[in-house]
Formats: sequence, structure tokens, C-alpha cells
Amino acid sequence: MSRYWSDIVSRLTPYVPGEQPALAHPVKLNTNENPYPPSPRVLAAIRHELGDSAESLRLYPDPTARKLRETVAAHHGIRAEQVFAGNGSDEVLALTFQALLKHDKPILFPDITYSFYPTYARLFEVDYRTLSVDDAFAIRVDDYVLPNGGVLLPNPNAPTGHPLPLAEIERLVARHAESVVVVDEAYVDFGGQSAVSLIDRYPNLLVVQTVSKSRSLAGMRVGFAFGNAALIEALTRVKDSFNSYPLDRLAQVAAIAAYEDDAWFRNSCAKVVASRERLSAGLTALGFNVVPSGANFVFARHEGYDAATLAARLRDKEIFVRHFKAPRIDQHLRISIGTDAECDTLLDALQDVFRAYVG
Amino acid sequence: MSRYWSDIVSRLTPYVPGEQPALAHPVKLNTNENPYPPSPRVLAAIRHELGDSAESLRLYPDPTARKLRETVAAHHGIRAEQVFAGNGSDEVLALTFQALLKHDKPILFPDITYSFYPTYARLFEVDYRTLSVDDAFAIRVDDYVLPNGGVLLPNPNAPTGHPLPLAEIERLVARHAESVVVVDEAYVDFGGQSAVSLIDRYPNLLVVQTVSKSRSLAGMRVGFAFGNAALIEALTRVKDSFNSYPLDRLAQVAAIAAYEDDAWFRNSCAKVVASRERLSAGLTALGFNVVPSGANFVFARHEGYDAATLAARLRDKEIFVRHFKAPRIDQHLRISIGTDAECDTLLDALQDVFRAYVG
Repeated sequence: MSRYWSDIVSRLTPYVPGEQPALAHPVKLNTNENPYPPSPRVLAAIRHELGDSAESLRLYPDPTARKLRETVAAHHGIRAEQVFAGNGSDEVLALTFQALLKHDKPILFPDITYSFYPTYARLFEVDYRTLSVDDAFAIRVDDYVLPNGGVLLPNPNAPTGHPLPLAEIERLVARHAESVVVVDEAYVDFGGQSAVSLIDRYPNLLVVQTVSKSRSLAGMRVGFAFGNAALIEALTRVKDSFNSYPLDRLAQVAAIAAYEDDAWFRNSCAKVVASRERLSAGLTALGFNVVPSGANFVFARHEGYDAATLAARLRDKEIFVRHFKAPRIDQHLRISIGTDAECDTLLDALQDVFRAYVG
Repeated sequence: MSRYWSDIVSRLTPYVPGEQPALAHPVKLNTNENPYPPSPRVLAAIRHELGDSAESLRLYPDPTARKLRETVAAHHGIRAEQVFAGNGSDEVLALTFQALLKHDKPILFPDITYSFYPTYARLFEVDYRTLSVDDAFAIRVDDYVLPNGGVLLPNPNAPTGHPLPLAEIERLVARHAESVVVVDEAYVDFGGQSAVSLIDRYPNLLVVQTVSKSRSLAGMRVGFAFGNAALIEALTRVKDSFNSYPLDRLAQVAAIAAYEDDAWFRNSCAKVVASRERLSAGLTALGFNVVPSGANFVFARHEGYDAATLAARLRDKEIFVRHFKAPRIDQHLRISIGTDAECDTLLDALQDVFRAYVG
């Protein structure tokens, strides 16, 4: 606390990202990264941009990320004017709060969801109300029929992995024609049904995606919003009042290359999905209850062991999973899908932990 | 305008960055980029991070940019806790508005200055008052003795290039102990006197710098703020409520490498300064009045020719300079310092334009 701080600063509750361990070979299953590298075309595209002297880095990037937006638009069969590009989907979501979710009524989101949402709401002084997911962690769309300044939900949800069918999303969007419905699809490529196909029909629908998970580019910070051109314009106006060039030259070419290699993308997702089913079976065999997941992580609890203790014991073995000290989910672990070898290491370690466990 | 927009959106006046021409070989003297490539160490560091498969790009970057902050702190002889790193100095400035400049009194900045400042003020609903620079474009520090919520000025100023002596900056900072004084030193390495040396003595001083100009990395989006740890904490709290990872992995290693090659940096700056003096002499010989510059651009007017017309005629020849349609400066051109060859091309082109000029 300092007299120089703006009023809002001391009221913030900054988001705490998952630990980035400074270890040579951690089994890192805590931040939902893809276990496989990005497409080889990404490396080739960055090398091409760098050339022999990295000369182009002296020049500003395209502030509109035009070529990237065109590439991603073509991938989805939409127009570049329906695509906004930002510095990861976190920045896109932050700009969305400022551009489209600040009204005189509270926004609505699930009680169990991405923990950054209330953080944004505090930063931008957006009132919010949370609605309970059911005991199976399903979002109940009918609960959202309330006066609101916007609706925000991830699909699949985080940290549960629970996917909502597209028909439910459409029902939600259709019922809220007066406000923007933001569907955060960070994990959609691992088994969810994307709502991008609906943006031409619903001017109030904004879909947010990222290259961090399914395209193995968490390290490059590129995310998108898809929606009606008027929604995209609002985001662009706010972005151009905040930071003209959030995407550097290498991030832009890397993301373009990742979208141009659809086979790599689909193969990578399929491997993760197969490993998820394998890990889910392994965890179930160990006595865990595993929430059916449409994401690149599973959310699991074991009646016999305290989740925080399990996470700590795994950490001692340099295996990192995520535990949230939050109501309703403090006995769950969120486990990112690694390679099969990493998943096996985790399962073996859990058996060791169980054997040595003193409650 | 759309009913879905937050109230603020239609009141924004987004910043308009200089044109990024889609031409093979423009003479690009419009966005103050460095004409020389970054240090070869930058290329080596990026290649090292990429390795054979760009594998590391699947992992999130360090959200605290710890190693980068330590490197830059060592360069300046300060501590990492006194360094904030963001996505270019534009993002750093935006976060500064939100974290340190939003109080119940207006902030103060010069009437002729970086045109992004009023844009930020509108976005974050910060009241501001501008104070006139004198007829030689000097900032008059004594004018700033007014009730205020903060003071913001570039040194050297943009788009004039006019540098203020460090003693004047210190006088300003010392007089405003109640509020934060932000010195935007984007151009300081080309002849200004940095105020970083003062941050240990003045807890209200925040100094903002960038790798975009003097370290030839405009394409990579890295900027800094230096100040008392309490000021840095405010920025970090806001950043962590907005976007945890604004600096991607390659941007972090590129900036570290650029700071590690001090000889390249000093040589690059010296070449730009020498070319600036040469170009200033050439423009003066053509009849321009050139503002003495401490930056990597010059600000010049010619009594005989309309500045907007000159800029348009140069553009026809694929030579890009910047013209601002703003009071007091609409007869000036801001010309970035290119290589000597580019500066000569500009001078030759101006002579052609003068010969063909019909007012």
C-alpha cells in the first residue's frame, strides 16, 4: 500500500498462475500446456522471419495482425472483420470486460470457473454474480435467465473440464439477445463443440480461443475473439487505446504457421484425447472420481486422501498438478494431460504416495 | 456504435500508429525505428531458445520475466524489484495510468507530446490538463506547480525531440513529492539524460524505457518501468489482474540478449546520432528550421512549403515521414533517422518536391 497507488490497486486480487518450476525435468501437469511441440512449420516460419540477421525485428509488427486474422478467419470460414487478435486469450478476455461487459447490471458466470474472471471484474469495476454449477459440475443454462450485463462461461469449463453441448450454448445465446454472451473456448479443441459456427446468426455472441493449448504455443501469447464485426470493433477500439502492438512479429508468424498445419493440430489433439482417456481410466482404477472431460486436463478427487496433501506430496517428487483452495473444489486436483509416459509417472507416484500416506 | 458496447467505447479516440507500408523497399522514416538490426546476440539467443523443434514454445513464459528484469536491473545498477517489464512501453504506460495516475485531481502533461497520452486518459477516465511548451518547444517545469494527480512527460519530448536537462527533471520530481512523476524515456539513449539514477532518492519517480528504439527491437514489444518498489508493485498488481504473461518466451530472451551487448547498443546509438546531425545540417541547408533533437528523429518545418503536402509528395515517392494534424505543429514534419543513404534519398526527394511544388 502506498499513497501513490490509484484507489483500485489495493482492492485487486491478482490472478495467480500455475507454478513454473525452475527444475531441469519436472513432470509439469499444472498449467494445461500441450505435451507435444508446435508444428515444425512454426519453427520454419520463425526462422524465415529472422533470416540471417533478425533485421526485421527492428521494425514494428503489423498493429492490426491482418495476415494472422485472415488466416484464422479462413480456417473458421468467417471474415477477418469477425476476428480480433490479442496477447493470449487472457488479454482478449480483459479487453472484453472493458469493451463489452461493463454495463449497469452485473455479469453472470458460474461459481466454479476460470479464476481470472472475478479478478478482471475487480480491475474493471464490473459487478458480477455467480451461479452454481450442479453437483456433476454441469452449467445449468436455465439459471442464467436473469437481468444481466453479460454472460461469460468457458466451454469446456475450467477447472472441471465439463463440456456443454452446442445446443445448450445456442439456447443461452438466443435467450440473452440484449447482452453479450462470451464463450471462452480455450479448451474446445480437445472435445468440445465450438460456437464459432453461430456467430453469423447471433450478433451478441463472442467466442474466445487461444493457440496456447491445442496449438502448443503457450510460450508465444496469441489469442482470439470471434464475433459480429461490431463486437470486434469495440475490442479493437479499446486495444488501440491501450497498446497498438500487443503481438510481436514472431508471435504473428508463429500463429499463422500453426493454423496452416491443420494435420499437425488434429494429430496433436487426438493424442492428447487418447492420453486423457487412458489417464482417466488409470485414475479411476486408483479409486479417483474423474469428471468426464472435454479438455486437455482432468478434474479428479479421491475420497480417501486430502487433495492439497496429495498435491504437496507429488510436488516433492517433482510432479506438478494444480490444487485450488476454493469452496466445493478443494478436494479436487486438476491434472493436465501429459505424454503417456508422464501420465504413467504420475500414476506410479500416486500409488507411492497412497502407500506412505498418513492422514 | 452498438448497444453491446460498454459506455466508454464510443467515447474513445484510439491512437493511430504510423503507417506500416506494404512495399518491398520503402524509405521508412515515420515510426522512429532504428535503421540498424539488433545485436547478433539477439538472433543467437532466439535460435538457442528455439532449438531443433521449438519445443519450449509449448510452455508458458515466466510471468514475472525475472531473468530479464535482473539483467536490466544490473545494467542500470538497480534491483530487480525496481524494474517492471511489459509488452512495449505503450503497455507499461497504459498500466501506469491505471495503477498510479488515477486520482481525484487531473494529471498534467505538455500540450505538445506523445499523442497516446490523451488516449490513455480517456480509456481510464483520468482527467488531464495540458500545459504549453514554449515557442522553442521547451517544457517549462515551473508551470507544473499546480494541484495534480500526477505528471507525465517524455524526455526527450515527442514529437519534438526536445531534451530537458536532468536538473530540470529533478526539480520537477522534488517539487511534486505528493504525486507520481512519470518520465517517458523512449528516446533517451540518443542524447537525453536518464532519470534512472534518481529513483533511489525519489519514491514518486517512475521512469519508462523501451527496447524498440535504441536496441532495435520494435518488432518484439518489450518495455520497462523503473522506480521505487512500491510503484513497481502497483504496476505488477494491475498487470496480474489483466494479463499474467504479456512477454512471450522469445521476447524475453531477445531483450536479455540486447542488454547483454552493450557495445552494439552504444555503437548503434552513436551511428544514429551522427546521422541525425548530418540530416539536420542537410535539412537546414534546404531551408528547414530543425528543432535541436536528443532523439532518433528530427522535427522540422519549412516556411515555404505546407507540411502535409510535403508528406504526401514524399509518400508518392515511397518515402514515409510523419505529419500530425494538430495545433501548433501542423506545419512540422517528424522525420526518423535512417541510414545516411536513406537520409540522402530523403534530401534528394525533398529537392525534387520543391522544384515541382505548386502551392
